Amino acid sequence: MAETNQEVGFIGLGNMGFPMAKNLAQAGFRLRVWNRSVNKAREKLPDLPQARLCSSPREATEGSQFVFSSLSNDEAVRAVTFGPEGILAAMDENCIRVEASTISIALSSELESFHATAKRRFVASPVFGRPEAAEQRLLWIVAGGPSEAIERCAPLFGVIGQGTFRFERAPHANLMKLLGNLTIASTIEALGEALALGEKGGIPPSDAMQVIGSVFNSPVAKGYGMRIASQNFRPAGFRMDLGFKDVLLAIRAGEELGAPLPLASLIHDRFIEALALGRGKLDWSAVSSVSRDAAGLAATRFS
Amino acid sequence: MAETNQEVGFIGLGNMGFPMAKNLAQAGFRLRVWNRSVNKAREKLPDLPQARLCSSPREATEGSQFVFSSLSNDEAVRAVTFGPEGILAAMDENCIRVEASTISIALSSELESFHATAKRRFVASPVFGRPEAAEQRLLWIVAGGPSEAIERCAPLFGVIGQGTFRFERAPHANLMKLLGNLTIASTIEALGEALALGEKGGIPPSDAMQVIGSVFNSPVAKGYGMRIASQNFRPAGFRMDLGFKDVLLAIRAGEELGAPLPLASLIHDRFIEALALGRGKLDWSAVSSVSRDAAGLAATRFS
Amino acid sequence: MAETNQEVGFIGLGNMGFPMAKNLAQAGFRLRVWNRSVNKAREKLPDLPQARLCSSPREATEGSQFVFSSLSNDEAVRAVTFGPEGILAAMDENCIRVEASTISIALSSELESFHATAKRRFVASPVFGRPEAAEQRLLWIVAGGPSEAIERCAPLFGVIGQGTFRFERAPHANLMKLLGNLTIASTIEALGEALALGEKGGIPPSDAMQVIGSVFNSPVAKGYGMRIASQNFRPAGFRMDLGFKDVLLAIRAGEELGAPLPLASLIHDRFIEALALGRGKLDWSAVSSVSRDAAGLAATRFS
Amino acid sequence: MAETNQEVGFIGLGNMGFPMAKNLAQAGFRLRVWNRSVNKAREKLPDLPQARLCSSPREATEGSQFVFSSLSNDEAVRAVTFGPEGILAAMDENCIRVEASTISIALSSELESFHATAKRRFVASPVFGRPEAAEQRLLWIVAGGPSEAIERCAPLFGVIGQGTFRFERAPHANLMKLLGNLTIASTIEALGEALALGEKGGIPPSDAMQVIGSVFNSPVAKGYGMRIASQNFRPAGFRMDLGFKDVLLAIRAGEELGAPLPLASLIHDRFIEALALGRGKLDWSAVSSVSRDAAGLAATRFS
Repeated sequence: MAETNQEVGFIGLGNMGFPMAKNLAQAGFRLRVWNRSVNKAREKLPDLPQARLCSSPREATEGSQFVFSSLSNDEAVRAVTFGPEGILAAMDENCIRVEASTISIALSSELESFHATAKRRFVASPVFGRPEAAEQRLLWIVAGGPSEAIERCAPLFGVIGQGTFRFERAPHANLMKLLGNLTIASTIEALGEALALGEKGGIPPSDAMQVIGSVFNSPVAKGYGMRIASQNFRPAGFRMDLGFKDVLLAIRAGEELGAPLPLASLIHDRFIEALALGRGKLDWSAVSSVSRDAAGLAATRFS
Repeated sequence: MAETNQEVGFIGLGNMGFPMAKNLAQAGFRLRVWNRSVNKAREKLPDLPQARLCSSPREATEGSQFVFSSLSNDEAVRAVTFGPEGILAAMDENCIRVEASTISIALSSELESFHATAKRRFVASPVFGRPEAAEQRLLWIVAGGPSEAIERCAPLFGVIGQGTFRFERAPHANLMKLLGNLTIASTIEALGEALALGEKGGIPPSDAMQVIGSVFNSPVAKGYGMRIASQNFRPAGFRMDLGFKDVLLAIRAGEELGAPLPLASLIHDRFIEALALGRGKLDWSAVSSVSRDAAGLAATRFS
Repeated sequence: MAETNQEVGFIGLGNMGFPMAKNLAQAGFRLRVWNRSVNKAREKLPDLPQARLCSSPREATEGSQFVFSSLSNDEAVRAVTFGPEGILAAMDENCIRVEASTISIALSSELESFHATAKRRFVASPVFGRPEAAEQRLLWIVAGGPSEAIERCAPLFGVIGQGTFRFERAPHANLMKLLGNLTIASTIEALGEALALGEKGGIPPSDAMQVIGSVFNSPVAKGYGMRIASQNFRPAGFRMDLGFKDVLLAIRAGEELGAPLPLASLIHDRFIEALALGRGKLDWSAVSSVSRDAAGLAATRFS
Repeated sequence: MAETNQEVGFIGLGNMGFPMAKNLAQAGFRLRVWNRSVNKAREKLPDLPQARLCSSPREATEGSQFVFSSLSNDEAVRAVTFGPEGILAAMDENCIRVEASTISIALSSELESFHATAKRRFVASPVFGRPEAAEQRLLWIVAGGPSEAIERCAPLFGVIGQGTFRFERAPHANLMKLLGNLTIASTIEALGEALALGEKGGIPPSDAMQVIGSVFNSPVAKGYGMRIASQNFRPAGFRMDLGFKDVLLAIRAGEELGAPLPLASLIHDRFIEALALGRGKLDWSAVSSVSRDAAGLAATRFS
């Protein structure tokens, strides 16, 4: 384990945050951790060597060279950013805010602008990959911000991901994340429809996935396809209600930027249906169950 | 070059048929070729060693161990199959019909049944891959029919593709092909929307594809994504009007089998729009131009 | 009862055909009736004064001044038209074919052309209105054909409908019928969604229909809205499987004419879902049940 | 002109507000007017007998028996409601707030709750009808609130509308308004598609509307159908950008209440396209131009 001597404020130990934190801690970064639920943080602390639990985002930020956050939505990001106990109040000029949450492009622009006004550095760094990928340091990082600041983040990004894409502006990184998630959600919808059609015609979904998996030869198509074929939606690597949030963010971006997204709208309606039917805690690939229901296939048992 | 001593009736020297024929001829199969346009066939004959031009599907079939067809739609397949000059009239009991065209599941069932009644062997063998893949023997073959018959086709499949998936029934193979094409068309639509949204937000499409290509790591997503990003739709590896036919076949299958396919319906409408705007001779990935138009982006120049 | 002295071949005593036949018979036209199921025809004959049962479309046509047909689809219309026992073979130059079925524009063009070649007169005359409207002579007739022929039909149209719209060509009348049905189906879908949303928000559907009924002040919106609000889908004035056929015809017309119809596609998918769930024998307004299901509302009981 | 002796604070003299204000003033209510743009208010004052111009929502409210507002969105309603210069601060216990704006159900709930807490009476009263209907006192009013308060509003409602529907809760009235507008927008979309299909098939849109108008016999279908058929989108009785707002409110309501609304989503995407193409200042029925574009029909000239 290297000793970096660098302090990293780390905000948010959720499904994605925790494995990233672990990789940072194991690489020698000294974490100053804050989590909304202090009990959950306490449970996880033993897996984070040298980490120190803090009582506020402010405390986690003070004296850190980086403050890294991974939270579930705009509201949570706002809550840790602003106010006297927030990150912005405690950052000094040497600190870089690294915001890995999937947030709206509107909030990203706002944060970019607030940090610029306060002469603080802000790097949006949403990531692609599910929790397993996070554990294995296989995330793809989309970094948006001043290139010098992104450069300084390279040691962090190097221990959490397999590669970093750079954009000059924070909202571009966040928009990029939305584009990617939209494409993934589209793949889920496409597979859900195709496998349901195949099943109605007598093709077992797992047989169909053998073929589609080979043709696409993509970890995304294979991974989600196998989940859908086996109707195995637990544990939820990425929960449907959070997935819905991302679809909403893409649609809001389309409204603001003037881009109609009929496929996103279709997915939006599928998610609302799945949520209305009480499936929000399953993996987001369970949205495919709506295609099965609509085809009159025997109801999925959500084991 | 091996000498197989086997005669193969080969019907249809189109975009996909010709490279497959070439690979068969170069592997030593002696082709008995028929093509609707005799002039086109004559042009291509020099590239098919030992091949002989025939004047009817019947003549191409007579004495062959296999009769292989690759045609553009149901109507063309019917035309070469039935009637006194058709394949069925000329097949003997040793001959195997290998039908590689993308056809309706209804016609596939009908062909399966007609051949069975006539005590002739029928193998549906639609393929995945564009013309370049066909040239490089990288097709994926989906074979549907009696396993003994598929087994006997292995030497043919071996020189045109990189792998064969087997189904017991012909219409399952054809349905499988429709599922795959639906998934590919969905990917095109998803990328078209995502890249248009990104472009409206300031992200150059080729930058967006760097990220999406890495996340998906799929030749399908990368290949189509790069075409869409560069708006490079000529030459048409797979022409939009033929792509539309495949989407229609999937929707018809959904109607018959009782599976609603809203994503397929969306794609259906996109294709009708692109065709109504005169883009039918471009590669089918040009259907993405509809997303750009709808977002008010500068009109694609179809070079 | 007037005495017209005119003979009318009448083909098809279904849900719509029978009330029209009754009105014609009661107005004094002498009907020569043919129905595919002769038993059903026999049952209904007592309600058709002066009507005579015939053993083939040919016999019903012979010597008639008009031959009027009301059938459920293209296939049935083809079956009574062509062949030695069909209408076309038996029409003389004084006879006018009046085809009230909802058929494809392709078949309508074909019939127009066949009749013209045979120097026989063809008038497409699809009607708007449900069986109750047919009984009360409140249909709207859309007549397409040579104006002189339509003129001669006026006495017939006058006893079955409240008004006639004229088009110079038969397929225009049939296309017009498809446009109208598409608009009605759209109203059903719109009401289905709106009432489900309202119900999730606490507004009883019948209360919502009070408002919408007043704002629209349309018999179509009120009639279907009340059925949907009360979930009263039996008896089926217009059966869902027939309604689906009409939606398909509109979509096919869009494919042929180059008009994308995303709302029609949405309705198409709703119907496939409702049919896959076994609701095909209910009134077509029961397609609204899909909106209730998708919103997680208590399952409709189809009494 | 009756003398009511009642003072009515009137907030918002826009397209809809002004004709309602005029009818109230002419019926003898003494208006205390406030409008964000004071110049526009001054221009219109001569048409409002006895009306007095106020310098804040607060001043318009003070001493009034009613305060009536008609504004364009949630933000504007919030702005006049809260704060020291807002309505709520100035209402006394005899005053009834009558909020005719089309707002979100979330804001309506919030207003209902704030007023209840402050022991002030709140009646949501969104209206159906375009500016011409407002002038002619032909609006339909959907009133939501305590029945005693609605009862007291009857004299006001009587001079602006042709009828009032009552709901016990404010958000139900606002939701009802969204349901109605969704149904109207659906009618516009349906007519846009149907007329484009007809036009591609050779049926002039105005001919098609003769038929559809008769079948539907609805002022909504006829009014919008004639606008669409003639492509006459100016002046904008209801501007597309405001119409889009209403569609968004319905979709947000669906997200919150758990009702998927695929037809609303389709309309949503049509509006984004029309807005992206710069048509936001036209009447919202101009969203039908997207159907014409997609069918490759000659571009609409927006005179």
